[in-house]
Amino acid sequence: MSSAPQQPKSTNIVWHPGQVTRDDRQRITGHRGCTVWFTGLSGSGKSTIAVAVEKSLWDRGVRSYILDGDNIRHGLNNDLGFSPEDRTENIRRIGEVAKLFTDGGVLNLTAFISPYRSDRDRVRSIMGEGDFIEVHVDCPVEECERRDVKGLYAKARAGKIPEFTGISAPYEAPEKPELVLETAKLSEEQSVAKVLEYLEKNGYIAKA
Amino acid sequence: MSSAPQQPKSTNIVWHPGQVTRDDRQRITGHRGCTVWFTGLSGSGKSTIAVAVEKSLWDRGVRSYILDGDNIRHGLNNDLGFSPEDRTENIRRIGEVAKLFTDGGVLNLTAFISPYRSDRDRVRSIMGEGDFIEVHVDCPVEECERRDVKGLYAKARAGKIPEFTGISAPYEAPEKPELVLETAKLSEEQSVAKVLEYLEKNGYIAKA
Repeated sequence: MSSAPQQPKSTNIVWHPGQVTRDDRQRITGHRGCTVWFTGLSGSGKSTIAVAVEKSLWDRGVRSYILDGDNIRHGLNNDLGFSPEDRTENIRRIGEVAKLFTDGGVLNLTAFISPYRSDRDRVRSIMGEGDFIEVHVDCPVEECERRDVKGLYAKARAGKIPEFTGISAPYEAPEKPELVLETAKLSEEQSVAKVLEYLEKNGYIAKA
Repeated sequence: MSSAPQQPKSTNIVWHPGQVTRDDRQRITGHRGCTVWFTGLSGSGKSTIAVAVEKSLWDRGVRSYILDGDNIRHGLNNDLGFSPEDRTENIRRIGEVAKLFTDGGVLNLTAFISPYRSDRDRVRSIMGEGDFIEVHVDCPVEECERRDVKGLYAKARAGKIPEFTGISAPYEAPEKPELVLETAKLSEEQSVAKVLEYLEKNGYIAKA
């Protein structure tokens, strides 16, 4: 089951290890469980790259899973909005779920703006060494706004979306990410290749 | 990615399917993602059986993952206690996480008392047809209290644990569970065999 417990609100919970370990699970799958955490502005390319990475991994027989706004905001976190407190709780829960998937041996991709450095660092801190791979999807806000594929920047400028990251709410770039993808300069294919190369070089997946 | 979205609190979230489907993932693993939801009193044998089932599955090359008090109460739900409201939110979140694992193609075992019928039924309702396998680990409270492996019943009788299921808080048995394990009558091996038989007969895993 999972690694070292944190302090829960409730007591009377006995921690006992399962019979099947994380190493055992990885022996079935042939790859390592980990979390590739994409962070960046809306429209920077996080989800697009995550989906393309998942496709490439599947072609190699590596099972991955994407956590993103689609399956999290509509489910687990459908009680949360976009206030600073709710954003922090949003990322806390996502981090805990990512930890479970990682522990379960899944190569897990997350695609959330996750604008606060402290929130991301907290996720890193609950993960085991090497389990958290922070990928800064680094695209200037001007470029994201120019693309505006979902029309959200226009809405934000019109004041229809309060607390919109990059416009009316802050984005705190990672200081020491494992990887930076400058998506205004790289093609989608180049970005995907950089992620796969990182995963190969660092032993998360076998070389193609 | 996931199946049909629920209504989120936040708007401006665009639902788009990933390129790798759940069927694709299952083609890699050779088994179906699902959630085997063990429910029953403290001490009824939920975790013991889940751990033994996981071991048997691993021996067959089927990757499973256990969600239980250990990895949930110490992590995702460490902000929740045991009031009725917190129990409901506890199960809601676990159900959403179980849905993600199921969607990710993992054979997912959950071991929580989950005392309220409405909470379990809500989890069933967010899952796809056949994804939720409710297993009532049915053991009389007298027998659970006699075993009292964790000493919790003694503490509950002494008033040291408020709202203890079966003593000072209700347990609502499932009305139409997929499986009932009468653990006062069955050995651990017999219980495990019944679960595996169910999974085989209904096409979740290949026959051994």
